[in-house]
Amino acid sequence: MDASSPQNDGVLLLPEVLLLRPSALALPFTAGLGAHFRLLDPLDSPEPARSFLSSRCRAVRALLCLFSPALPVKAETLDLLPSLELVVVSSAGLEHVDLPYCRRRGIAVTNASAAFCEDGADYAVGLLIDVMRRVSHGDRFVRAGSWPVQGELPLGFKLGGKRVGIVGLGNIGSETAKRLASFGCNIAYYSRKERLHVPYTYYANVHDLAANSNILVLCCALTEDTRHIINKDVMSALGNEGIIINVGRGALVDEKELVQRLVRGEIGGAGLDVFEHEPKVPDELFVMDKVVLSPHRAVFTPESLEGVQELIIGNLKAFFSNEPLRSLVQYE
Amino acid sequence: MDASSPQNDGVLLLPEVLLLRPSALALPFTAGLGAHFRLLDPLDSPEPARSFLSSRCRAVRALLCLFSPALPVKAETLDLLPSLELVVVSSAGLEHVDLPYCRRRGIAVTNASAAFCEDGADYAVGLLIDVMRRVSHGDRFVRAGSWPVQGELPLGFKLGGKRVGIVGLGNIGSETAKRLASFGCNIAYYSRKERLHVPYTYYANVHDLAANSNILVLCCALTEDTRHIINKDVMSALGNEGIIINVGRGALVDEKELVQRLVRGEIGGAGLDVFEHEPKVPDELFVMDKVVLSPHRAVFTPESLEGVQELIIGNLKAFFSNEPLRSLVQYE
Repeated sequence: MDASSPQNDGVLLLPEVLLLRPSALALPFTAGLGAHFRLLDPLDSPEPARSFLSSRCRAVRALLCLFSPALPVKAETLDLLPSLELVVVSSAGLEHVDLPYCRRRGIAVTNASAAFCEDGADYAVGLLIDVMRRVSHGDRFVRAGSWPVQGELPLGFKLGGKRVGIVGLGNIGSETAKRLASFGCNIAYYSRKERLHVPYTYYANVHDLAANSNILVLCCALTEDTRHIINKDVMSALGNEGIIINVGRGALVDEKELVQRLVRGEIGGAGLDVFEHEPKVPDELFVMDKVVLSPHRAVFTPESLEGVQELIIGNLKAFFSNEPLRSLVQYE
Repeated sequence: MDASSPQNDGVLLLPEVLLLRPSALALPFTAGLGAHFRLLDPLDSPEPARSFLSSRCRAVRALLCLFSPALPVKAETLDLLPSLELVVVSSAGLEHVDLPYCRRRGIAVTNASAAFCEDGADYAVGLLIDVMRRVSHGDRFVRAGSWPVQGELPLGFKLGGKRVGIVGLGNIGSETAKRLASFGCNIAYYSRKERLHVPYTYYANVHDLAANSNILVLCCALTEDTRHIINKDVMSALGNEGIIINVGRGALVDEKELVQRLVRGEIGGAGLDVFEHEPKVPDELFVMDKVVLSPHRAVFTPESLEGVQELIIGNLKAFFSNEPLRSLVQYE
């Protein structure tokens, strides 16, 4: 009997899963996982991590990487795991995983964007309504006691009829598009390739999408191709009234350029859940009413974390049962 | 030739419309209206208003009431206008109009909720996402510089799967329901009577709706029947985790009771665009992170005001041409 067909008569017979996690992380998932898998956790061992991997993990077939963009899953780690066949990632983003390496070695990768996409889309829409309609601004205005004194808050703008360009029509982007369509927005998108069977206009590059949009919503993965995809030229094409919503990753945007344009009035507003050097946020933004600033919370709710745990367990169980993975990342 | 069939050869031949407006109101609409109608404005006359109405307006058939809930259209005014057949109101709410009186005299009333409903629904959804996902709270947290210091903001809650009870399935309520369905919310509603051909669960009273909802969204008109419709019993039925969104009128809610329950943790949160004694807002709310406070902005954008002007002119033109009114209020 091998580890892929465990009997339920002892923890040692459960399939082994190597766990990589930040040391500070409280582990809401451990209990749920421990019932199905034997977790090998270098942080539980007195051995140095590399030595633990070399000595204890040579037969490990599955690696679970928990909320750890700070823990890159790169060649130097993966080289120590000759039996590895699967990397299960608990985030939506995969910028910390060396995908080309995994592809070369035939290692399957799963992510969790399917569990995060609804919350991410809800939050993108919330940020957009907030920027357009000045919700946070109005809340500040009322709390400061300004309403009876200053009277009317400046009007915001209507969502309906606005042209929204979605950058990255993956799970989060698709859910965002579905929601914004119900507000009467006109949806277009940029993606590496055109999606069949979607009712939205496709642009083959972000510049043209920006030039034809009032609003850009950034939902794509951060890769070397998408780093600073929203650069000076794209912001210029979007125009002085344009609005940028970012629920992807901070480095999708040339943040320095964005801040300068906001200061100069060369972009209309922004709703930012992520920042290039978070938790550091550029000071200039703190005094602006046309931005909404959020501490990287778009995809996180108790419900989404429950969904992630369920998806992780589902992927690992599928793997050890030779069934199709639930959220396999497609290499392109 | 009477006033209902004017020739375009002089302003005196345009149909007369009596205008009631607050003295402080800048009139974005006057130019557009002046091309089609001769406006009789008591504020332009040195005569006292009552005397102006008695002497100048006995033949007036149409009254336009501009953004003036502070200017009640009551019997004492209407009694001075024996020829009146139409009251055109520029707001969605009609609490300042004596509808039973108008009904008795056969005076038609139009309102502008059709022009405001999309913005009102957008804002209701924005307030709900904000309360559920702590958007304004997060914005305060980041602006205060707390993110690098305090770390994680507490998680909010997912919208999908929540039971949303819409109080008043009129124009704004219907548009709100349509949007929230795209977020995966389960929609139910209370209305004076059940609507045919809507896919949402109907409750014949607000208490039962609250008992079966996680969230109440208030979109109904303020009348004597709906004043304090959200009272102690309804809040109790909604429960300690329940959320109230109000884009209707402040007096739909027993505000004192709501504030006490928020203080005691007997209601989960609230997104309030309107208040019982606005612009006065209860001080206790200013320090709460579970509420979002908004200075009565839900339905106002440049686009909605343009739509209101268009609707007002459309109703008046239809009236003077004996065509069907565009937004006739149905008496019940």
